[in-house]
Amino acid sequence: MEQEFASVLLENAVTSLSRLPGVGRKTALRFALHLLRRDEEEVTGIGEAIINLRKGIRYCRVCHNISEEEICPLCASEERRSSGVVCVVENVRDVMSIENTGRYNGLYHVLGGLISPIDGIGPDSLEISSLALRVAEEPISEVILATGATVEADTTNFYIYRLLAKSPRPVKITQLARGVAVGNELEYTDEATLARSLLDRTPFEM
Amino acid sequence: MEQEFASVLLENAVTSLSRLPGVGRKTALRFALHLLRRDEEEVTGIGEAIINLRKGIRYCRVCHNISEEEICPLCASEERRSSGVVCVVENVRDVMSIENTGRYNGLYHVLGGLISPIDGIGPDSLEISSLALRVAEEPISEVILATGATVEADTTNFYIYRLLAKSPRPVKITQLARGVAVGNELEYTDEATLARSLLDRTPFEM
Repeated sequence: MEQEFASVLLENAVTSLSRLPGVGRKTALRFALHLLRRDEEEVTGIGEAIINLRKGIRYCRVCHNISEEEICPLCASEERRSSGVVCVVENVRDVMSIENTGRYNGLYHVLGGLISPIDGIGPDSLEISSLALRVAEEPISEVILATGATVEADTTNFYIYRLLAKSPRPVKITQLARGVAVGNELEYTDEATLARSLLDRTPFEM
Repeated sequence: MEQEFASVLLENAVTSLSRLPGVGRKTALRFALHLLRRDEEEVTGIGEAIINLRKGIRYCRVCHNISEEEICPLCASEERRSSGVVCVVENVRDVMSIENTGRYNGLYHVLGGLISPIDGIGPDSLEISSLALRVAEEPISEVILATGATVEADTTNFYIYRLLAKSPRPVKITQLARGVAVGNELEYTDEATLARSLLDRTPFEM
């Protein structure tokens, strides 16, 4: 949809907002017209929050999670968290998802993506060598490969597995259980998942 | 979804972005993490476009369309546009929609909303008295009520109709044709629209 705007400012705002993921020009226009109706102070606050986010954010030197310090609060809280277990995730959002479960008490390592030759993302674009370094230097007993169940995730996991197998310190490598999602009906579960959940069956618990 | 963020900057950005219409905290987080991956220059540009939009935008003194001048280009181009016809619309977006048809050559009047007692919007919150003033003072021969087909639109149209009927200068008041939308099947057209399209039938054209 190409539209002629009465105002260069509106045109710029629409073009900018349509850079957000999944936002086309029509939605961007809706956003812009909404912002026009809000208080100037509120809108300035939104713009500044975006600018400050990108300018101010840093990444933890150890686990590469976003952080405002050189070392993020998760890595820094060694007395409270089990430092022998490292959970390897694709991105910052995955850290949040796992933290939200409240069932994990170890450390993290954020890869910053997955290996995807089609997108030009090789192991060197990701935080994989820094993971190998952590495993080699820190007293880590277990690395949990907590990625999704995609082809890219499998490729990445395989690469990391082969790399860590050569590590001077032996380390246990685990991955997330695959199986029927909690709350799902069996008839809507795909065959690969169902086959996997049969193979990996666990003792019945009440 | 309540999440604990590793960073106040991220928290602020997510809260700000979730102020956009139809954007919840989950989508706002997706926007924020996307922005984190972009160039700092690009992200600063987006933030500034939002701030400048709200700070810099003005409304046309005549038709209340958004404008960067005191009088918008549409109102200013009297030699090119027919100044005897005024199309009354709810908002700025409607002006764009009608301009996009390329079939209208008159002027506009942007109400800035519709009468909606349930939302506390009365005629005084809208640009209705300024419309009556235009009709009284300018040589306007026709006012087209180009609002949607909602209860609020009907209320607003009726109010404007009654007000303009008392105008010192007589003016023709028209409204958009109601009928079967172009491309629609008859069986999916509601009964009220179908009834209306029968009553308002027009001579057959090849």
